[in-house]
Amino acid sequence: MTGGPVHEALAELDLVDHHCHGVVLDPLDRPAFEALLTEGDRWPGVSPFDTPAGVAVRRHCAPLLDLERHAPADVYLARRAELGPREVNRRFLTAARTGVFCVDTGFAPHRVTTPAELAGAAGARRPAVAHEVVRLEAVAEDVAARGVEPDGYADAFRAAALDAVRRPGVVAVKSVAAYRTGFDLDPARPTDAEVTRAARRWRADGGRLADPVLVRHLLWTAVDLGLPLQLHTGFGDNDIRLHRVDPSRLTDWLHLTAGTIPVMLLHCWPYQRQAAYLAAVFEQVYLDVGLTLHHVGPPRARAVLEEALEITPFRKLLYSSDAYGVAEFYGLGALAFRRGLGDLLQDRVDADELSLPDALRLARWAGADNARRVYRLPDGH
Amino acid sequence: MTGGPVHEALAELDLVDHHCHGVVLDPLDRPAFEALLTEGDRWPGVSPFDTPAGVAVRRHCAPLLDLERHAPADVYLARRAELGPREVNRRFLTAARTGVFCVDTGFAPHRVTTPAELAGAAGARRPAVAHEVVRLEAVAEDVAARGVEPDGYADAFRAAALDAVRRPGVVAVKSVAAYRTGFDLDPARPTDAEVTRAARRWRADGGRLADPVLVRHLLWTAVDLGLPLQLHTGFGDNDIRLHRVDPSRLTDWLHLTAGTIPVMLLHCWPYQRQAAYLAAVFEQVYLDVGLTLHHVGPPRARAVLEEALEITPFRKLLYSSDAYGVAEFYGLGALAFRRGLGDLLQDRVDADELSLPDALRLARWAGADNARRVYRLPDGH
Amino acid sequence: MTGGPVHEALAELDLVDHHCHGVVLDPLDRPAFEALLTEGDRWPGVSPFDTPAGVAVRRHCAPLLDLERHAPADVYLARRAELGPREVNRRFLTAARTGVFCVDTGFAPHRVTTPAELAGAAGARRPAVAHEVVRLEAVAEDVAARGVEPDGYADAFRAAALDAVRRPGVVAVKSVAAYRTGFDLDPARPTDAEVTRAARRWRADGGRLADPVLVRHLLWTAVDLGLPLQLHTGFGDNDIRLHRVDPSRLTDWLHLTAGTIPVMLLHCWPYQRQAAYLAAVFEQVYLDVGLTLHHVGPPRARAVLEEALEITPFRKLLYSSDAYGVAEFYGLGALAFRRGLGDLLQDRVDADELSLPDALRLARWAGADNARRVYRLPDGH
Repeated sequence: MTGGPVHEALAELDLVDHHCHGVVLDPLDRPAFEALLTEGDRWPGVSPFDTPAGVAVRRHCAPLLDLERHAPADVYLARRAELGPREVNRRFLTAARTGVFCVDTGFAPHRVTTPAELAGAAGARRPAVAHEVVRLEAVAEDVAARGVEPDGYADAFRAAALDAVRRPGVVAVKSVAAYRTGFDLDPARPTDAEVTRAARRWRADGGRLADPVLVRHLLWTAVDLGLPLQLHTGFGDNDIRLHRVDPSRLTDWLHLTAGTIPVMLLHCWPYQRQAAYLAAVFEQVYLDVGLTLHHVGPPRARAVLEEALEITPFRKLLYSSDAYGVAEFYGLGALAFRRGLGDLLQDRVDADELSLPDALRLARWAGADNARRVYRLPDGH
Repeated sequence: MTGGPVHEALAELDLVDHHCHGVVLDPLDRPAFEALLTEGDRWPGVSPFDTPAGVAVRRHCAPLLDLERHAPADVYLARRAELGPREVNRRFLTAARTGVFCVDTGFAPHRVTTPAELAGAAGARRPAVAHEVVRLEAVAEDVAARGVEPDGYADAFRAAALDAVRRPGVVAVKSVAAYRTGFDLDPARPTDAEVTRAARRWRADGGRLADPVLVRHLLWTAVDLGLPLQLHTGFGDNDIRLHRVDPSRLTDWLHLTAGTIPVMLLHCWPYQRQAAYLAAVFEQVYLDVGLTLHHVGPPRARAVLEEALEITPFRKLLYSSDAYGVAEFYGLGALAFRRGLGDLLQDRVDADELSLPDALRLARWAGADNARRVYRLPDGH
Repeated sequence: MTGGPVHEALAELDLVDHHCHGVVLDPLDRPAFEALLTEGDRWPGVSPFDTPAGVAVRRHCAPLLDLERHAPADVYLARRAELGPREVNRRFLTAARTGVFCVDTGFAPHRVTTPAELAGAAGARRPAVAHEVVRLEAVAEDVAARGVEPDGYADAFRAAALDAVRRPGVVAVKSVAAYRTGFDLDPARPTDAEVTRAARRWRADGGRLADPVLVRHLLWTAVDLGLPLQLHTGFGDNDIRLHRVDPSRLTDWLHLTAGTIPVMLLHCWPYQRQAAYLAAVFEQVYLDVGLTLHHVGPPRARAVLEEALEITPFRKLLYSSDAYGVAEFYGLGALAFRRGLGDLLQDRVDADELSLPDALRLARWAGADNARRVYRLPDGH
């Protein structure tokens, strides 16, 4: 089902995409495109096009490239190459009808758009706006790369993080603690001595930030910074240990940090119900099912949203695409969200379980206003 | 879908609500009412009415107060105040068409009905009956408050528990071990010496019963008492660590206690499938999805019941409201159960996956007879 | 919904059942039949017929015995006895339209068919073919029963396993590590000294193979053997600790063994989403929802498949019945799979979310070709 007033309202609404990344600026050949299509990898005999996300791209993105629905992968890629990245990006980004992007700038293995470039390519009826999300692990790793002394690490990291969040346009910080340690952490703020010892180990061992003490310190530094903290939870690539990133494992830390910063649980799948529980019982907790929606595709977006909303207060669900790299995912994320939420709400209206004015309000909240409220964005930005 | 013979049979059936609490006797202003509407709290800008449960109250409870469906929260509360608690309670409790209540009397931060008062307010076509469920943590904490010596704690607790369950009308005991320690407990019965040491620590530290040895001791005392044991599992307020209350963590203890007492898994969400597994492989395990049903509301009650029944033997599912405080939840829990189970069964009949006589039998079992059987309730009581 | 071209294609397709067991050769009285109908047990007052699987047998299997749909259990069993095991087995096995069986021969508490006998009873339009799956725990326990010295255990087990997999018709090995230790294992290959010490403990203690070091050693021996490894995950009888058999707990081991053998996650429920995640991010991981499908029955098979396929690459889902003992489960597993997958795919075609040629290809892949590819089965075998 895709008709009705709730769908119309969602189609008209400029979304706030509270967590996304840049889009690749260079042409993508088949291996490069397929690698961006999956959280896995390219494997012999298992094309990333033969996944729910790949099927959704051929179905929903092909027409935006003037192709038939379900166009074969080869045809799709040939047309994509013919149009060139600039035009392809423009088409999918404008189709997403996103008014505001909050861009995590800390992950960019490719040459990707800046937040301003992303917004520039996306403007449709009116110009889109971009804000920045500072990835704290990147800040910490920059500090370490500069060669700070272990006993100066805590101060240097805090100072660098403060500098980073004071840049114009920064609205939030983000942590990928999920990838580094998972959430079975001692919830307490580490002491200075513990941090120094851990920084010493890190200097000796090198590598990315993955020490449990330093990850805890990072999360507590986020509390000090005062901005909303976006946390990767659940689904990701195979660097995740899925059972360790169930967000309910954050409960002790959420108790200790109650009354401080908003905590934005990203992705969540397959723990969307656990995330819903946290959003229902902790004032500071919010959630989205970004990344998930374009990977499961429109046929399952509603089912995931139904679980995510089972007990979630309607002020607590946000929209994100978590798109990275291929512009298709900005369009597909927005489509799956609009259709999934629209079907969910319109069916409740049709069954008289929800009034139409309430449904329209909840759609605006989830699609834009909840993010505006948490990130204190100006109206229309 | 809400029609058909299964729905009619469920509408006619007097439910056995095998786990609920008292209803508040005093008038409730908006803050007090909203606080009872959520497992979270009242937060600025996030009304508990803007949740699935709040939407369900405005939709399904407003008409019972002579209001339009989807009445605004202010109108709802004004009318509620106008009618007064006695009349409001009567309306919702009679609408629930519950014939038997098994009332957990160990949780009552407000002034609430006794079991007899609850049944008195609920009688519709014929008088309702109330039984009592003894919360063992409350018994243990009373014993401790009386100042027992540590080496006398085990005997004193057992004696007090025996006294409590010998009171007329007591049909079960309950534990909130989920809130105190979670289920990652050594499954073995603790020795006398261990209990004495733990009781000594508890006397020194004070506070509520939360020592893992004493919680284990409490669960094993329940085995000695011989009555069915109700266990909170899954969803609750933020005092829960959700990942530690997955009921499958009870497996070792269920092996050790096989052949003794029935174990009633309450709530279960989001672990209803794990609970179903236990009910399918352990003779003594039963389950309900109480509390969950009114929090997810009618639009999702069926989905939760579908998962709860995926492999559960039909003799093992029970009904509970787990309502506390506001009379709305007795009505809403019963409505969500009747409609959700009715839709599930009627659709299977319509698809010829289930015969109508079987469907009617399974509806009676889940709504009343399974509870009568486990708690050995007389017919009609 | 059960019509349409996808259902027709699945009805015509000879399935590859990549994991099943033998069917009992002797007549079964009611207690024996009921015991095989459940992963639980026979309990007073709780008939295994009063479960989703039991209802499905009365609905879908009764007509194959010339009875009315929903025939009472007594009538069903009487007719079953009248026809005799040979005829009953023939009817259900031919109804399953399975072209290839991969038979785990390591679990047979009853007198059951050999793989060849199973295939012989199953041939319908053309002869069915059987391959063998070697259960490694059985091999290890045979080695131990022969009285090997602890420091010779590793070599003796490897030699015995090599002998076993070199038998004609062996296409895979299997482990029930899930039952013995769960998946919270040190992922590293144990040293020779560790294995010897563990083998010494095992010789002293006796019993089945359940030492964590020896279970790890078994899994690493499977890597050396080079054949696909089938792993029981999720749902089983009460010997499982469900929370310890979430397949995502295998992640570290999957990293260490990447690039070696295919790993086939069996059953998975209720962790089908976790299994889907692993299949999406590890090249070597595949999954099925066998055993689950006949226990949840046709009314829920689609829902389980929808979750299992939420992000799974379409090359990664396989069919298995995991049937054991009663021939009904071969028929019911095949029916639930064909109908569940058929409904899922046909609805996506009808909603224009999937092209019909793609749907037909995905059906063939899941029903047969994915298994042929992984197990390197000749076409038509």
